[in-house]
Amino acid sequence: MEFSLEQLAGILGGTIDGDPSLKVQRLDKIQEGQPGGIAFLANEKYENFFYKTEATAVIVSADFIPSKPYTTALIRVKDPYTSFTTLLEAYQQLHQASLVGIEQPSYMDESSSMGELGYRGAFSYIGKNCILGEGVKIHAHTFIGDRVKIGDGTVIHPGAKICSDTQVGKQCVIHSGAVLGADGFGFAPQEDGSYKTIPQIGNVILEDQVSIGANSTIDRATMGSTLLCKGVKIDNQVHIAHNVVVGAHTAIAAQTGIAGSTTIGAYCIIAGKASIVGHLKIADHTTIGGNTGVTKSIKKSGQTLFGFLAMDLKDFLRSYSIFKNLDDLQKRIQQLEKKG
Amino acid sequence: MEFSLEQLAGILGGTIDGDPSLKVQRLDKIQEGQPGGIAFLANEKYENFFYKTEATAVIVSADFIPSKPYTTALIRVKDPYTSFTTLLEAYQQLHQASLVGIEQPSYMDESSSMGELGYRGAFSYIGKNCILGEGVKIHAHTFIGDRVKIGDGTVIHPGAKICSDTQVGKQCVIHSGAVLGADGFGFAPQEDGSYKTIPQIGNVILEDQVSIGANSTIDRATMGSTLLCKGVKIDNQVHIAHNVVVGAHTAIAAQTGIAGSTTIGAYCIIAGKASIVGHLKIADHTTIGGNTGVTKSIKKSGQTLFGFLAMDLKDFLRSYSIFKNLDDLQKRIQQLEKKG
Amino acid sequence: MEFSLEQLAGILGGTIDGDPSLKVQRLDKIQEGQPGGIAFLANEKYENFFYKTEATAVIVSADFIPSKPYTTALIRVKDPYTSFTTLLEAYQQLHQASLVGIEQPSYMDESSSMGELGYRGAFSYIGKNCILGEGVKIHAHTFIGDRVKIGDGTVIHPGAKICSDTQVGKQCVIHSGAVLGADGFGFAPQEDGSYKTIPQIGNVILEDQVSIGANSTIDRATMGSTLLCKGVKIDNQVHIAHNVVVGAHTAIAAQTGIAGSTTIGAYCIIAGKASIVGHLKIADHTTIGGNTGVTKSIKKSGQTLFGFLAMDLKDFLRSYSIFKNLDDLQKRIQQLEKKG
Repeated sequence: MEFSLEQLAGILGGTIDGDPSLKVQRLDKIQEGQPGGIAFLANEKYENFFYKTEATAVIVSADFIPSKPYTTALIRVKDPYTSFTTLLEAYQQLHQASLVGIEQPSYMDESSSMGELGYRGAFSYIGKNCILGEGVKIHAHTFIGDRVKIGDGTVIHPGAKICSDTQVGKQCVIHSGAVLGADGFGFAPQEDGSYKTIPQIGNVILEDQVSIGANSTIDRATMGSTLLCKGVKIDNQVHIAHNVVVGAHTAIAAQTGIAGSTTIGAYCIIAGKASIVGHLKIADHTTIGGNTGVTKSIKKSGQTLFGFLAMDLKDFLRSYSIFKNLDDLQKRIQQLEKKG
Repeated sequence: MEFSLEQLAGILGGTIDGDPSLKVQRLDKIQEGQPGGIAFLANEKYENFFYKTEATAVIVSADFIPSKPYTTALIRVKDPYTSFTTLLEAYQQLHQASLVGIEQPSYMDESSSMGELGYRGAFSYIGKNCILGEGVKIHAHTFIGDRVKIGDGTVIHPGAKICSDTQVGKQCVIHSGAVLGADGFGFAPQEDGSYKTIPQIGNVILEDQVSIGANSTIDRATMGSTLLCKGVKIDNQVHIAHNVVVGAHTAIAAQTGIAGSTTIGAYCIIAGKASIVGHLKIADHTTIGGNTGVTKSIKKSGQTLFGFLAMDLKDFLRSYSIFKNLDDLQKRIQQLEKKG
Repeated sequence: MEFSLEQLAGILGGTIDGDPSLKVQRLDKIQEGQPGGIAFLANEKYENFFYKTEATAVIVSADFIPSKPYTTALIRVKDPYTSFTTLLEAYQQLHQASLVGIEQPSYMDESSSMGELGYRGAFSYIGKNCILGEGVKIHAHTFIGDRVKIGDGTVIHPGAKICSDTQVGKQCVIHSGAVLGADGFGFAPQEDGSYKTIPQIGNVILEDQVSIGANSTIDRATMGSTLLCKGVKIDNQVHIAHNVVVGAHTAIAAQTGIAGSTTIGAYCIIAGKASIVGHLKIADHTTIGGNTGVTKSIKKSGQTLFGFLAMDLKDFLRSYSIFKNLDDLQKRIQQLEKKG
């Protein structure tokens, strides 16, 4: 895909300093700009790179006044960052839209159906009685079990596994290697110390605009549904156990784990490697720090929690700063004891 | 699959209040019961849901006396929870048993063999000199390397990878995306600071009734075997390094990691995100809490350990409750110093 | 593959005690030696096993004098461990070299090319405009997106996913289920509390001799590149976020996570389950302990850090030993208060 500066200035409502017929094929960082690329300058900290960049063009603010010589063409716009993001999105949409059709060999049971403008990559597998919406992109090596529903515009990246009975909403993105709908970890201890498997017959439901990171695992419910509400964003290698509910627009960073039957509120932010034990309720708008272990329900919304066992962030940091010098504290007690 | 209440009451040895010819196709939670479903009531806490449920039938205790009007049929049994579990298991067994045959395209080297009543999904791969037992189910996208043995009744879910020389026992379950037999992380530091790869030529052995969760990784031994004994249950995203041994009927929750050459005893319970360093021995019947870091061998069986560095659970909680108020402790010392 | 002791003694520059025509097919541990295997004895601790081993031959030191009867043949060499490692490497090289050709069905776009002596397993997928070097081994179920470059001698294990625009150097090893080049976790918060996806158009670059463990995820950069320099060794289930740079010959153990835009120095050692927040710089030769949380840049090289929030290892252990007895400390303060 190649665009002239004239075309881009038209899209962005900007003006050109330089040759409008110049062509770009690529979006570059300003500090790594090369011929054929277009970069942006939104932050003064990066202005030095502007004078050195080899990018063909740079998107700058309408009122930007260079203070040194430079070699690139300019597109002047109201807000360079927003304009650049517009180009980024256009780039991705063009890219996704171009993926249409069916590569062979691929497998789809005849009882299943695929909407218009969809894509199925080679070695993709679709089981029985599945319904795929319009523009759904099923990349190579994707596994889709029986009775799965996938909403319009959803993209399933290579090698993701969507097990039987899973329901995925519209405009979701499932990254490579993610597993939706594996059995929950349910075993009943027997008298002899062994375990008996508890069948897991529930499913996984993703509402619209949910994103699941690479190699994350969302287990099916024992009964009922493991539910990720609208707009939930989940990073890589996150583990969501059976019967968990995650409220709308909650974001969960990499390697976090949530144990069975816990309900997370809406608009929460959970940092990386946090862990939340089972059967809790976490209030809306809760922020949970990295590595934090949550073992009790959070009833009051808007708190920020942190620590090996979750506590108020500021309290933890105060205690930890004393922990760092516990040796000193101990010596002061020894001093007092000697005096006494 | 559809059953009449008469058939189900026959299986469960129960009696029917209502129309024996009513049909159910589904197992429901009582709070989410819908027409066509059968639910159960075993816990008084859920009795309110009983009066509202739309399930076609509910399994209740033989002596249950409703205190309000209700609309569902009843199957009265001695122990509703056990009866429901019986139905759950029957449901899963019927489902698994129905998977027989070979979908195409699939790949199996001619030197390998597959037992009766087995299943191989499309795009499954089986290398050289493999022996698959009776009723083994190899789902789509499964990879099985060379010289792999898989015992009767084992199920390998979509996209699991069983690398060369792995031995899997009978009635094991390997979930999607699990990797058995990748190389152990073995590198010899060189004088120039670089690393030389130490070839990993051992294998992975799973005894009977072992379960491995989605996206878990069990590395092959450097030499000899990484060994998971009978009945071991492993959750999602667990990492078991080279030459680890896990004793019989030990359960390990999600995202736990066990470093190389450590031996875990039998009947242990290891909660989520625990980590155990290499070359340790952990006694039988040890309980290790979530997020706990174990850096020393555990010789005495039956202990419960917890903490950033593992210690007795109660001791940790006592220390942590003081840690939470360390600021207060510091102030009390300051007071004493002033007085002094 | 079968070798006579005469052949092996020739390769190793050793001498034989026993029948030079004896054949071995396998490398064994001395404590598990069986007929047809060759073991080694380098450490006195294992000498007892020597007298019991059933291995066909044992590699021993030139000056080794047995003190009891034994049944195995000997190959006497200068350094038994080094000799055994030589055999291990020869074994693996022979094994890899024997994998040549294309299994069917497999998929490669006609615009892509594959070097000589390469291997592509069944169900492997190679997208558009890819260039694969000489002797590249692409195992079954591997996904390779568009415009991917892979250097000579690199091995991609079953079911790894190398997404579009990734560049992989020479002699790299990518283990099963690893995902290179999934989208970075980039979302812009909107005024209504929802998130807008920030397109991720950068890539992943691996220099030569990089190893990536099973089910690890290396995200593509938002723009520019996520970069793993020469000789970096990464264990299983490690997460490397967008725009991270890892310096040459740094080793990272299992389940560690590194957040976006952090730069790790060269020759670092990072133990298992460590976590490093985003936008930091970690000096060369830094050692980071297991489970350690790093939240600040490390400027001085050669430090060893440990703890829930990283601090000097010795300082942490000193503080933690007092933490274990905080109850005692509190009681001593109470005593002092009573006296006062």
